[in-house]
Amino acid sequence: MTSSIFASGGDKSEIETGLSFQPKFDKDGLIAVVITDHISAEVLMVGYMNDEALKRTIDTCEAWYWSRSRQEYWKKGGTSGQIQKVMEIRTDCDQDAIVLKVSVEGNGATCHVGYNSCFFRKVVKTEDGTIALTSPDQGRVYDPKDVYGEK
Amino acid sequence: MTSSIFASGGDKSEIETGLSFQPKFDKDGLIAVVITDHISAEVLMVGYMNDEALKRTIDTCEAWYWSRSRQEYWKKGGTSGQIQKVMEIRTDCDQDAIVLKVSVEGNGATCHVGYNSCFFRKVVKTEDGTIALTSPDQGRVYDPKDVYGEK
Repeated sequence: MTSSIFASGGDKSEIETGLSFQPKFDKDGLIAVVITDHISAEVLMVGYMNDEALKRTIDTCEAWYWSRSRQEYWKKGGTSGQIQKVMEIRTDCDQDAIVLKVSVEGNGATCHVGYNSCFFRKVVKTEDGTIALTSPDQGRVYDPKDVYGEK
Repeated sequence: MTSSIFASGGDKSEIETGLSFQPKFDKDGLIAVVITDHISAEVLMVGYMNDEALKRTIDTCEAWYWSRSRQEYWKKGGTSGQIQKVMEIRTDCDQDAIVLKVSVEGNGATCHVGYNSCFFRKVVKTEDGTIALTSPDQGRVYDPKDVYGEK
């Protein structure tokens, strides 16, 4: 897919080691974004942006995403107050992924079920060989009902 | 897509907060994986696994991926020696992303162009308003020619 906003067409060497930003969107027009805490470096969530969401994020220094399930733009924190102030943006060698280093406003949490990070469970092998998740190893920062109401 | 190896079919609450591992693969059968250094927490790369690659990763504690460009399995480090020993695996609330905390063997680098992390460039706005990348802000750990040969 050719992006309508960003440059494209660089050769492999230019994309991998050059200074031209040419984000590579997938066939659905999306790029994967890893959101980390700018101080602890903890991975908080993974989201997806299309070119317009990426442009809004760069222009406003607040994270915008494209919701694959709702098929709409969403500014993270629009409802919850958990705005992600963007402190740094990085891309990888083949420019098909983005890392955002953010400072989270409001209650400081990221996950909609109440935890600081969406990655609050480990994947482990149990004694009988099955693969399961551990109980959350961090406490809830907030009760989702207080932020999103009863569901 | 229904995974052939892992459980599926849990309701929203079970998936988001329960202890059953039900990874959600996309319509191409893939799940996004964020690889971080198990000590510094730095994001090293983003890769993709299908269910078999994820199973191999869990079974062997070494990271296996599905290459979207080559359409084949690849064990990270098979050529370069940069094996990723998996210290911890996490999944997120909706179980459609994975975080691997790894220890990198060999020369300790991850990126195929020679850097410790694939995210060696920042995305910045220049003075004239264009969006560009910065020069790498980390030194090369190795010369790719020494590992992969001349290309």
